[in-house]
Amino acid sequence: MVAVDATHDPQLTSWVASANAAGSDFPIQNLPFGVFRRAGSRESFRGGVAIGAEILDLGALAPAQPFSGPAGQALAASAQPALNALMGAGAAAAAALREALSLALRAGSPLEQRLRRLLVPQSAAEYTLAAEVGDYTDFYASIHHATAVGRLFRPDNPLLPNYKWVPIAYHGRASSLRVSGFEVTRPTGQVLAAGAAVPELAATRRLDYELEVGAFIGRGNALGEPVPIGAAEQHVFGLCLLNDWSARDIQSWEYQPLGPFLAKNFATTVSPWVVTLEALAPFRTPWTRPPGEPPPLSYLDDTGVRRAGGFDLELEAWLETASMRAAGLAPQRLSHSNFRDSWWTVSQMVTHHTVNGCNLQPGDLLGSGTQSGPTPGEAGSLLELSGGGKHAIALARGEQRTFLEDGDRVTFRAWCERPPFRRIGFGELTGTVRPARAAR
Amino acid sequence: MVAVDATHDPQLTSWVASANAAGSDFPIQNLPFGVFRRAGSRESFRGGVAIGAEILDLGALAPAQPFSGPAGQALAASAQPALNALMGAGAAAAAALREALSLALRAGSPLEQRLRRLLVPQSAAEYTLAAEVGDYTDFYASIHHATAVGRLFRPDNPLLPNYKWVPIAYHGRASSLRVSGFEVTRPTGQVLAAGAAVPELAATRRLDYELEVGAFIGRGNALGEPVPIGAAEQHVFGLCLLNDWSARDIQSWEYQPLGPFLAKNFATTVSPWVVTLEALAPFRTPWTRPPGEPPPLSYLDDTGVRRAGGFDLELEAWLETASMRAAGLAPQRLSHSNFRDSWWTVSQMVTHHTVNGCNLQPGDLLGSGTQSGPTPGEAGSLLELSGGGKHAIALARGEQRTFLEDGDRVTFRAWCERPPFRRIGFGELTGTVRPARAAR
Repeated sequence: MVAVDATHDPQLTSWVASANAAGSDFPIQNLPFGVFRRAGSRESFRGGVAIGAEILDLGALAPAQPFSGPAGQALAASAQPALNALMGAGAAAAAALREALSLALRAGSPLEQRLRRLLVPQSAAEYTLAAEVGDYTDFYASIHHATAVGRLFRPDNPLLPNYKWVPIAYHGRASSLRVSGFEVTRPTGQVLAAGAAVPELAATRRLDYELEVGAFIGRGNALGEPVPIGAAEQHVFGLCLLNDWSARDIQSWEYQPLGPFLAKNFATTVSPWVVTLEALAPFRTPWTRPPGEPPPLSYLDDTGVRRAGGFDLELEAWLETASMRAAGLAPQRLSHSNFRDSWWTVSQMVTHHTVNGCNLQPGDLLGSGTQSGPTPGEAGSLLELSGGGKHAIALARGEQRTFLEDGDRVTFRAWCERPPFRRIGFGELTGTVRPARAAR
Repeated sequence: MVAVDATHDPQLTSWVASANAAGSDFPIQNLPFGVFRRAGSRESFRGGVAIGAEILDLGALAPAQPFSGPAGQALAASAQPALNALMGAGAAAAAALREALSLALRAGSPLEQRLRRLLVPQSAAEYTLAAEVGDYTDFYASIHHATAVGRLFRPDNPLLPNYKWVPIAYHGRASSLRVSGFEVTRPTGQVLAAGAAVPELAATRRLDYELEVGAFIGRGNALGEPVPIGAAEQHVFGLCLLNDWSARDIQSWEYQPLGPFLAKNFATTVSPWVVTLEALAPFRTPWTRPPGEPPPLSYLDDTGVRRAGGFDLELEAWLETASMRAAGLAPQRLSHSNFRDSWWTVSQMVTHHTVNGCNLQPGDLLGSGTQSGPTPGEAGSLLELSGGGKHAIALARGEQRTFLEDGDRVTFRAWCERPPFRRIGFGELTGTVRPARAAR
């Protein structure tokens, strides 16, 4: 596990004033990486680091070669239009760059004048994926989600016998990954109406969000070489938010026997900023099995190596309908949960994924699966919140929802908070539902 | 559907003598594309075309700019170390290049002397993937395979209700795709022994092959823009052989509810040569549903557009054990089937994949799923041939197999043959099983 060091000192302040504001997602203790350019411009995308309400433009900083050694090499890699090279350089390189940036952005830094010209307001930026994702894998790591969904799809058999042993996952679609702000078109697909003998092609009537954590792979592993559990976090660059948009009616008709396909692959969105494991070091939580539950097989058991495999990371999903927007009403929170309740840790996902020799590559993306908590209010999807569409969720002004409607905007937020440390935020992941293609 | 034109004339011969031999996989009527270099060299990989026992080096040919117009542009694209740009240029560009190469390689061509210096014997070459595969999707298009496997996994419910309506598929792993010749390490994973309450981590005891056809995507489609069935073949560059190596014991324990994952993603191999749809034009077969079976939903029904969506493509799988090899015995054929028996066509796969707006990109790979035929002898996997491991398959010299053993070499072959046309072959896809990592 990454150690808590001087970069986490809650007393540190930045010469970027907005970074010092209470409640900022991006204090100097965070320094997440992303890929951006000025909105509406034809500039090249390049790496940047969020600091307060600003972005430090790493593409503009790199040619000045302000850092030497590993930090300098990592800076050069981060100037590119995708951060795969930075991610692949390994945890030590990213840590060296983060430390150099922490020094450079600190109040009193001699670099302040040079760097001030390289700030771009986040409000003036647009983003793309932080990496070219070779493969995207989605796990199913919340036992609370698996149980709740299992109850809807298989009332007699909610949690399958393999769940407590196998970090269940499936391969997702890399080509339809998009960054926050992407407008998701309601997908069309085969659905089987209740009682019907023949399916029909229709726009989904059960469009849902899934509140997930994403993990970008750092250093890869060669095909045939598993990553042992004690080394797994050395292969993780950082975390982000992920919305695994899902069409539940398409899913229930197509998913047997080979799993979800068109119900998921029309779009998956991620937040622009990738928060490094270094920044999250103060917020690790013990990972244990509840009493009476079986321990994992030894290849997945890292309690001997570290006792804090989890992340105390608060997660939220908010909904703003078109009529809320028109009326100027605030969005309404529908889901809140915490990543510490995940049955499987990120390390376990990495090690399980590679135990058969499967090779992960820098910039690959893992999804955690919907993170639902132990209480009904902590459900991370509308499928769960509405009991499979049976119970409408009441919204402001008499509106209600079972699933998403056209014009709905979904926003995810996540943050870590544990005094005396500064809050570490993930920023936002938003997406708005567009009408189905045939209806436009 | 691609038309039969002068490039298919069975009377055509090449100045490359080996291309004219009866039974050659690569007569001048074929001209498949691949990516190669001299074996053991440090040369760059580049595109080539198979002709008889030779490869015409397109990387060496391109700088001379022997062709003008679309053929010349396609040639430049084919000189690269991956053929994504050629594939993305569309069917007309690839057809123009194939026609120009057909003229240049014909007996009496004025280009003979210039091109003869650019031939590399296939026996002196090594290959890599024809494209950088962004996403790999595996279908389940043989109803005979689905029924046989369903009977083993779900005796009471072999063919699920969605099968005849939905071209079932799942996303596979792109990072572990390898070309013919790759040695596949027996994977380790969680398995549940019969009667056991707790799984164990073990090298698979049920390693299998799956005899499949691969399809490389040519021109892509934008996210949100489905490909109608009548245009689907314009998005397919060509076909190859594909072995979806599978660990059946890992698969049966992990696959519910999200489908196969570690049971498949340790390696998937493809043949080096991609046979274009142009070359396959004389071998198309009518695509119809047997009497009494439901027609597909209209978005998947191309009988109004063309009546020959299938491919009359013979498929074979051969096994050579280590002891056969030591004794100099010939490999033994285990599987033979024909792609014309597929329940779903390649066009239907493309259209279904995109009906929800999912974007395919040039060089993406589709697998057909195991192609098994209607009779028991036409099973395309050991799982089927051995009845789930219950009935050993007798080999020469008293050997037998239920699943693959270390040292086994699996070879797939495929070809089209329909007089008076010249035989169009796919070459070979081979792979040898290495012992599990822990056992080495």
